[in-house]
Amino acid sequence: MGQEINGFHHHLNGDAPPLPGGDRPDLLVLRPGLLFKVFEQEFLSKFNVLKAFESPFPLDKYLRDHAQSARAILCEAIVTRITADLLLQLPALQLVVADGTGVNHIDLVECHRRGISVTNTGDVFSEDTADYGVGLLIDVLRRISRADAFVRRGSWPLTAEFPVGRKVRGKRVGIVGLGNIGTKLAKRLEAFGCIVSYNSRTKKQSAAYDFYPTVVDLASQSDILIICCSLTEKTRHIINAEVLNALGKNGILINIGRGPIVDEETLVNYLLNGNIAGAAMDVYENEPRVPSELFRLDNVVLSPHRGAFTQEAFFDAFKIVMGNLDAFFSNTYLLTPVTTNE
Amino acid sequence: MGQEINGFHHHLNGDAPPLPGGDRPDLLVLRPGLLFKVFEQEFLSKFNVLKAFESPFPLDKYLRDHAQSARAILCEAIVTRITADLLLQLPALQLVVADGTGVNHIDLVECHRRGISVTNTGDVFSEDTADYGVGLLIDVLRRISRADAFVRRGSWPLTAEFPVGRKVRGKRVGIVGLGNIGTKLAKRLEAFGCIVSYNSRTKKQSAAYDFYPTVVDLASQSDILIICCSLTEKTRHIINAEVLNALGKNGILINIGRGPIVDEETLVNYLLNGNIAGAAMDVYENEPRVPSELFRLDNVVLSPHRGAFTQEAFFDAFKIVMGNLDAFFSNTYLLTPVTTNE
Repeated sequence: MGQEINGFHHHLNGDAPPLPGGDRPDLLVLRPGLLFKVFEQEFLSKFNVLKAFESPFPLDKYLRDHAQSARAILCEAIVTRITADLLLQLPALQLVVADGTGVNHIDLVECHRRGISVTNTGDVFSEDTADYGVGLLIDVLRRISRADAFVRRGSWPLTAEFPVGRKVRGKRVGIVGLGNIGTKLAKRLEAFGCIVSYNSRTKKQSAAYDFYPTVVDLASQSDILIICCSLTEKTRHIINAEVLNALGKNGILINIGRGPIVDEETLVNYLLNGNIAGAAMDVYENEPRVPSELFRLDNVVLSPHRGAFTQEAFFDAFKIVMGNLDAFFSNTYLLTPVTTNE
Repeated sequence: MGQEINGFHHHLNGDAPPLPGGDRPDLLVLRPGLLFKVFEQEFLSKFNVLKAFESPFPLDKYLRDHAQSARAILCEAIVTRITADLLLQLPALQLVVADGTGVNHIDLVECHRRGISVTNTGDVFSEDTADYGVGLLIDVLRRISRADAFVRRGSWPLTAEFPVGRKVRGKRVGIVGLGNIGTKLAKRLEAFGCIVSYNSRTKKQSAAYDFYPTVVDLASQSDILIICCSLTEKTRHIINAEVLNALGKNGILINIGRGPIVDEETLVNYLLNGNIAGAAMDVYENEPRVPSELFRLDNVVLSPHRGAFTQEAFFDAFKIVMGNLDAFFSNTYLLTPVTTNE
């Protein structure tokens, strides 16, 4: 390892050639996330990237042979899990750099216990996620994705009767989790004349919206429920049959949080049986697997976990990831450390 | 005619049976618009509806035989044109009721000359059109319709690399026509952190956005151009090669106004050749015909003229149409008369 530097690549910081492998610090990457793939050349130019994913050997052998002195790991959020067991195999590890905002894939308590710092990309994706939430809400009410499919298959000249959608204005929107994303989403929805209320661990003194102490209460007073909370053991499957019953036959569920927050099997049954009116989902319980029964439904919008991602936000995230790595290797303050809140 | 009343239907105003044909005023309908189709039973219960579209004879013969005493016509906006020639064939006509906001299909000058009143549905569709404009903007930037198609064809588990879209925040959005719809659109886009400017016949003193005196100037300062103006002889084909050149290779065009405002052939060529970055279109020059070259493009969103329409707005529009007809036949003031502004 350590020699896999491509000959030509774009440098962010001037035209200096990459340092020889021995002078660059090790950076362990178990699997390449989107951020790593997009900015791979930049990572290779500054670090001796240990590409565990290119090794033909089992991970534990690779780590034993190559990563015993690795002090930093860059991890993507969807597949890679930073578990206590993995940490045991990395005795020199001092820094876990997440390539996104969510850190539910990282055992923060164990990292803390071992004195390992964790960083995320801060708030860099929350604007885009909020925008996407609004996009999904307009789409599922106004049927834009279905309209596009209708026109593209040439149906319009044959049947002018593409079904008319529902109005955005005046809809009661319940936000599950009024954090960075939920707050930005609420602000946008106010401009459309939606009536926003929310559920959260605690009532937010700064928020003027109606607070409901449980998700069931919120659902019963909402036309549309939007999941913006993070995934924790407490939020896993909080969207269950009871919540969907409270949302009701005219209700719509939107998930821009994490898939396992929803009991997906129940949601699919409710959609198939018309027990709720529709759904828009950017996340799923077993990504990239999407229940194929949904593919033929006209009242759903299905998106492949792209809510947080834009080209612009990726570049911002990359700068934060690099900033954290630079800070760590120069023994200065991390830009966006994550602390355990338990 | 006059006997085609269905036996059973829902009454808006109580359960009184329809009046016999002879006591109900004539209402001429050349073609059934969406509004007429949805509320047909209600129209039939109050009016002797002259369904020209069901006659096997040519229109002029139908009008000569059945519509000489018709005082009111209900017209849909997309296909039916109320021309001077048509008006000549309707000697008793005193009222033209449009089923939407736009009246570019009605010869207002000739109506005025003949003392014929014209009504539209007022502002009832402008909220929904503005919402749809935002929906199309988010969709074309964030690729939501394409994402939905990607997931539905089962591609996600095969290739995780659905392309990342572009950020909404910070985009310079140029609004062509800052009327009811444009103003509502601008207010929404501000909540997303877009930088709004506009072109209009005259600078609006009430608007805080930058005004550009020409569409070319506006396009040259915009990342996204949204057409919200009405179709007149002055706006026909104002979006031409010069404007698209000013918008540039990274620019996006969105049309929620009327199809003929855009030189569609030129737009299609610019999209096919990558001379602009993308487009979202709810309207087309020759609806329901959509240029089929667009169907294979990944950077366009295609919608079948549904921007203005929601179930809720349709019901509001129906109440205004009925209110205007009631007012006319009771010799009182029309709710939403349209005046010529030339």
